Amino acid sequence: MKGVYFLISTLAILASATFLVSASDPSPLQDFCVALNDTKSAEAVFVNGKFCKDPKLANANDFFFSGLQNPRNTQNPLGSNVTAVNVDNLLGLNTLGISLARIDFAPNGLNPPHTHPRATEILVVLEGTLYVGSSHPTGDVFVFPIGLIHFQLNVGKVNAVAFAGLSSQNPGVITIAKAVFGSQPPINPDVLAKAFQVDDNVVDYLQKQFWYDNN
Amino acid sequence: MKGVYFLISTLAILASATFLVSASDPSPLQDFCVALNDTKSAEAVFVNGKFCKDPKLANANDFFFSGLQNPRNTQNPLGSNVTAVNVDNLLGLNTLGISLARIDFAPNGLNPPHTHPRATEILVVLEGTLYVGSSHPTGDVFVFPIGLIHFQLNVGKVNAVAFAGLSSQNPGVITIAKAVFGSQPPINPDVLAKAFQVDDNVVDYLQKQFWYDNN
Amino acid sequence: MKGVYFLISTLAILASATFLVSASDPSPLQDFCVALNDTKSAEAVFVNGKFCKDPKLANANDFFFSGLQNPRNTQNPLGSNVTAVNVDNLLGLNTLGISLARIDFAPNGLNPPHTHPRATEILVVLEGTLYVGSSHPTGDVFVFPIGLIHFQLNVGKVNAVAFAGLSSQNPGVITIAKAVFGSQPPINPDVLAKAFQVDDNVVDYLQKQFWYDNN
Amino acid sequence: MKGVYFLISTLAILASATFLVSASDPSPLQDFCVALNDTKSAEAVFVNGKFCKDPKLANANDFFFSGLQNPRNTQNPLGSNVTAVNVDNLLGLNTLGISLARIDFAPNGLNPPHTHPRATEILVVLEGTLYVGSSHPTGDVFVFPIGLIHFQLNVGKVNAVAFAGLSSQNPGVITIAKAVFGSQPPINPDVLAKAFQVDDNVVDYLQKQFWYDNN
Amino acid sequence: MKGVYFLISTLAILASATFLVSASDPSPLQDFCVALNDTKSAEAVFVNGKFCKDPKLANANDFFFSGLQNPRNTQNPLGSNVTAVNVDNLLGLNTLGISLARIDFAPNGLNPPHTHPRATEILVVLEGTLYVGSSHPTGDVFVFPIGLIHFQLNVGKVNAVAFAGLSSQNPGVITIAKAVFGSQPPINPDVLAKAFQVDDNVVDYLQKQFWYDNN
Amino acid sequence: MKGVYFLISTLAILASATFLVSASDPSPLQDFCVALNDTKSAEAVFVNGKFCKDPKLANANDFFFSGLQNPRNTQNPLGSNVTAVNVDNLLGLNTLGISLARIDFAPNGLNPPHTHPRATEILVVLEGTLYVGSSHPTGDVFVFPIGLIHFQLNVGKVNAVAFAGLSSQNPGVITIAKAVFGSQPPINPDVLAKAFQVDDNVVDYLQKQFWYDNN
Repeated sequence: MKGVYFLISTLAILASATFLVSASDPSPLQDFCVALNDTKSAEAVFVNGKFCKDPKLANANDFFFSGLQNPRNTQNPLGSNVTAVNVDNLLGLNTLGISLARIDFAPNGLNPPHTHPRATEILVVLEGTLYVGSSHPTGDVFVFPIGLIHFQLNVGKVNAVAFAGLSSQNPGVITIAKAVFGSQPPINPDVLAKAFQVDDNVVDYLQKQFWYDNN
Repeated sequence: MKGVYFLISTLAILASATFLVSASDPSPLQDFCVALNDTKSAEAVFVNGKFCKDPKLANANDFFFSGLQNPRNTQNPLGSNVTAVNVDNLLGLNTLGISLARIDFAPNGLNPPHTHPRATEILVVLEGTLYVGSSHPTGDVFVFPIGLIHFQLNVGKVNAVAFAGLSSQNPGVITIAKAVFGSQPPINPDVLAKAFQVDDNVVDYLQKQFWYDNN
Repeated sequence: MKGVYFLISTLAILASATFLVSASDPSPLQDFCVALNDTKSAEAVFVNGKFCKDPKLANANDFFFSGLQNPRNTQNPLGSNVTAVNVDNLLGLNTLGISLARIDFAPNGLNPPHTHPRATEILVVLEGTLYVGSSHPTGDVFVFPIGLIHFQLNVGKVNAVAFAGLSSQNPGVITIAKAVFGSQPPINPDVLAKAFQVDDNVVDYLQKQFWYDNN
Repeated sequence: MKGVYFLISTLAILASATFLVSASDPSPLQDFCVALNDTKSAEAVFVNGKFCKDPKLANANDFFFSGLQNPRNTQNPLGSNVTAVNVDNLLGLNTLGISLARIDFAPNGLNPPHTHPRATEILVVLEGTLYVGSSHPTGDVFVFPIGLIHFQLNVGKVNAVAFAGLSSQNPGVITIAKAVFGSQPPINPDVLAKAFQVDDNVVDYLQKQFWYDNN
Repeated sequence: MKGVYFLISTLAILASATFLVSASDPSPLQDFCVALNDTKSAEAVFVNGKFCKDPKLANANDFFFSGLQNPRNTQNPLGSNVTAVNVDNLLGLNTLGISLARIDFAPNGLNPPHTHPRATEILVVLEGTLYVGSSHPTGDVFVFPIGLIHFQLNVGKVNAVAFAGLSSQNPGVITIAKAVFGSQPPINPDVLAKAFQVDDNVVDYLQKQFWYDNN
Repeated sequence: MKGVYFLISTLAILASATFLVSASDPSPLQDFCVALNDTKSAEAVFVNGKFCKDPKLANANDFFFSGLQNPRNTQNPLGSNVTAVNVDNLLGLNTLGISLARIDFAPNGLNPPHTHPRATEILVVLEGTLYVGSSHPTGDVFVFPIGLIHFQLNVGKVNAVAFAGLSSQNPGVITIAKAVFGSQPPINPDVLAKAFQVDDNVVDYLQKQFWYDNN
């Protein structure tokens, strides 16, 4: 139902249950507040962000993550793969207002137009050449302000790799095409036909596609 | 005791147990965080704001409210009626930093001098003519900055209706006259006599009145 | 260039020069800080938000606005009209973190899918029946969390009118279809063809349309 | 005009031109940002907070203040004297979100009911015994939450002295009695008569008094 | 382990379990939110800040503290004693973004170089003369911006007393020397030898000292 | 003078004049607010953050940066080199609350103990093996909470490279050893001797060293 209501795809909804922060995340109220897995919170009670474990039980393991150096599989319809390191898999990030992502691209791989409702993104290209909408493919650091639609396309002949810092422990993501045409239950076709200036059978065709989401 | 301590009227105190946000509400840490009724929170434990239900259980009903189109009864000592739609009766507002109110006025109806400790108010007059302290009754949108005392008086011959947006999920309200003269237990009369430059029997008279509050 | 870079339509860009706040707007640092018109700021220098006039020169006129009671013309391709009252036309809103909008709908009028990058919206329907994506057209108050895509469609036989409170002095708006297919210069068609799973001539057709924006 | 509009007394208005912060002041964006005197800002242009001097010109003098150890004169109608150390007289406080006040009380001296629209106050009594509305005069530290009405009365036989920390570089102050009955131009007497349940000649009498304000 | 990981001394860690706020503390979401003792929170579950008690059970006692007027014992290696009044011992401070400290100094007493990771400090000297790093010992109010290293030395011949307001309900404290040389388990000596330009036996000597902490 | 007053090294002071944000940076008030060079601001007037250029003049160049892919020279006393990409050299970051850094390490290269007063850091190791204080050198992503002391040591036999995201447009940096022993003018040796439990000639020796700072 939410899928329709806010045009978030089902996958994004599940994400919303596990991702957790904001554009200007509320400041920490203690040195650290290591997140507990939601499953730990009794009877499905949540808070804004995440519950924290007893600080006396926190340890170094709560503050590191392994394996981001490894390339990801990009054999999918988009030819890209986003690996997020956020409060959901690096519990020590809770209350700290930042997260990270690794993005792998095959040649012609696309990270499709999307927004982060709760974070600005600063992206650094480590390998390859990305087209981010400007005519300046030579840059290797790009800024995407909070809430604005952006994408990256690998215009090089080889794989590309980028890392992104995001100003939230849970940036969230709205993949435009999937949110609009792939939400379940589907949006009233009249809305989409009028908004996108296409006739109903185009909308019908689009609503029947499989909308892969690499986020 | 709090009634005296901070000069909040009893009614305002009850409100404080159910109203829930701030001038610059902390940002959301997820797409939404539908409030649980306090009664749901085990053993009277609360958080800053409200606990949230499992996002997987959220549905469209959590994000809408019905009946604000209907006029309210203004047959009371003030001749006005404030209907608040905030996190307490529209649970989806939790963590989102905004709320709404409908205000109905009979002719000569008054929304008495009050402050919102945690919100700025922007008010739009739909019907009738309100006097808000300035000599410009012709305007139909007014701004009341956070924490400043304001009021509205229906100076027209017919009923008036206004809607107000407030920059908090729980603006709170301090009705000045009631907070000062109607708090329970009463404030030391010497304080009021000196502060208001009246003698003790005026204070005594005022402290014995019934202080109706439309909020 | 920005038009492409962040997929903001030209119109949205101009808006960004005059609209001015945020999801969790920074708190005010004084009782009020009435905005100066940008033209007042010497040599095109801006700040986060707006410069303020001397508080000694502020007057009641800075805090009210007239004419929102009047119906708007909805004779346009979308059959809807959004009238925003924000820091740009109600200067007293500067630093106060809230704004307002009136939305008029003709029968079948659509406020197309869009997001507010810096505000949550609470909408109250005054007349008519709006479809907002859920199967509950009977509600008259709806919440749209910050950054999430939403729309309203008038499914009644008569005009509809709604007022919306937004948790920012400058919510901003990204109209999805126009931002994706109507940005100038146009986005690389390969990006859109791959993202929306249509072939290049559909993208070419869409990029040649006129994208009306009621915001 | 503002005096009426928001029921701020004239004196408070002047204060608003020089006092400068918030309940949850926006965070600093550099190590320090020493305020410039408003007179320094060309053509009466202001910002949210204060302009800062070149950090290269900042020096230790910008971060200290002298003379708060000295008792203040309490020979005035209220028998109290509030000495504020805020961004206006300790320029280094700009952007740092805190300020300080010294309050001197003669026997029976009163700091009358007031609110701080942008700060919570924590008060420590150094000498004497203050009545703050509760029946516990033995405490020597008290908390007054942001926006709530509070006061202090010296119930001892000797002078009392207190220091208060406030969570803003410019807490602001609304002295209730003066804001309601002493604003210029005066509030419509009908509003006050109805709100305070007194007849018009009581209102007329009160509006003719001199309203001393120790803030 | 954390002791090493972030170079917080063990004592500071324990503090982090009980101290609770931030540079720009998230704003309150209700009139007050009196903290519950952590022991009250079931199964070692915490939140950002503290859980609150039922507001209906709040009383004046939750908002005051007694005994800060009394001098403290300064017979310790540093000759100083910091008495903090924060959310841990004045539960009503929860969500309100401010706290207080009393600092007693013996002649030559030192409050050693430290930082507050979550608060700016404004300090007022009540008795004696403190050297705070500048050449202006005559001031009696000093500001220490958030996160910057500062100290106070009693350069007078008698005891000194100061009060400090801090812009957080839990400022936190990092005592530099102890965090660097006294953390348990110890930091790799090579790191300290290289960072402080001393040879390993100096580091070894320092790591074997007892690091008294008055915070 | 500030150098002493807050124990910031001279170099850090200069940085403070050009670096510009915060732990929980104030939210943006428009889609973007590209920073102007300080030299642009008339008569050394600054604001919290940076002035912005006319948004109509903003272009894609304001939002990207080139050259971070290139290795840096690590031939210096610490064997490390920090390359910051923040609001000072990527002007589009202004108001957006995030920045980035590349850190190159020679074998045994050290990024010495330091704090960021306004940002949490999330660090990803791209090449080599860093020791960050824990006994877990195998991780490749580490979190350093705002205001806490941290360091990185290259314990591998080859060069190491890491990228760090920081939750501020201007994290700031306090390099502990330099701030304590290298500030100009020097701190009173008695303070350092007592705080670090060493005799005056050790302090004298340390204060005479050259304190290289790679930040």
